[in-house]
Amino acid sequence: MAVENSARAKVRRKDRANYDRVFVNAVLDECLLCHVGFVVQGQVYVIPTTYARVGETLYVHGAAASRLMKTLAEGVEVCVEITILDGLVLAKSAFHHSMNYRSVVVFGRAREVSALDEKRRALDAIVDRAEPGRAKVARAPNGKELKATRVLAVPIEEASGKSRTGAPIDDAEGSALDVWAGVVPVQLTRLAPVRA
Amino acid sequence: MAVENSARAKVRRKDRANYDRVFVNAVLDECLLCHVGFVVQGQVYVIPTTYARVGETLYVHGAAASRLMKTLAEGVEVCVEITILDGLVLAKSAFHHSMNYRSVVVFGRAREVSALDEKRRALDAIVDRAEPGRAKVARAPNGKELKATRVLAVPIEEASGKSRTGAPIDDAEGSALDVWAGVVPVQLTRLAPVRA
Repeated sequence: MAVENSARAKVRRKDRANYDRVFVNAVLDECLLCHVGFVVQGQVYVIPTTYARVGETLYVHGAAASRLMKTLAEGVEVCVEITILDGLVLAKSAFHHSMNYRSVVVFGRAREVSALDEKRRALDAIVDRAEPGRAKVARAPNGKELKATRVLAVPIEEASGKSRTGAPIDDAEGSALDVWAGVVPVQLTRLAPVRA
Repeated sequence: MAVENSARAKVRRKDRANYDRVFVNAVLDECLLCHVGFVVQGQVYVIPTTYARVGETLYVHGAAASRLMKTLAEGVEVCVEITILDGLVLAKSAFHHSMNYRSVVVFGRAREVSALDEKRRALDAIVDRAEPGRAKVARAPNGKELKATRVLAVPIEEASGKSRTGAPIDDAEGSALDVWAGVVPVQLTRLAPVRA
């Protein structure tokens, strides 16, 4: 199954495009931060925040009073971008240096989640991003906390994925040079937990 | 010295704000990806890309024909966001879970770099992000490659930093619970290089 390949979601570099839901979901489930772009009175903002995917919905949350949450709850258009950096690609020529990555962009409007069941499920999913099963271990949000938290749902429908993988691609001229070329893989590593 | 604390660059959560240039520069010099938000015909886009800081200027680059580069070269307003995730903050209560991070947002308009000296310096700085000194090792861009590459400069003037550090902050109710609480530090790790 594919996400909806609309004009605005179309990736210009066709060789790097990927509209497959399996790819999109894998990126969303691995990355921990999304970057939410939106416009308020003609001014563009990009705000980083955590999120969770449940089925074909992306949930973000925040203080009910926050600007991001208030603006999104009004139903403005958003562009949510998620990128995992996989490697630094060192070619023999400066020009052919690149990065390996997997990224997703989702376009749409957020809907405020008011049903308590869905709100709790979304918040559990967000807490579980820190550690699988964490929502079952920590004290669940009480009524006051649920009220102080806004949860917004963005449908993962109009979206696109993009990636680059593999070795550098040098040209004929560069290939002859005696310069180390290859990939330095990078990954977000969890270090030893520090007890509070 | 501080960056310019304008209305749009003001951080709403004052306890997390940081307008010091030392902080802003450190975040820019450590992170490898920025997220560029801009508007084309009323549509908001957020595009991830690499960048480099030289002095008080942030440089991005790309194919001369790319949409991002073309649009930015026209002098549209941009919001460039950079975030380093430092840790997952696990509290005893779900509500108090958080993340440790350092982030920067820069507002402004990009200027296309046409002077060859500045263009070469910016591209060298971007290549050096992959590995310090790399620009001296790899073959420098030739005339054709320089022409095929657009470099854009965004002044790091109207900007703000934000961060959260340290342990979870539980409330009195939560603190009594027998639940592990603490921080799982995370960091982007470079793994062993893979020769092409």
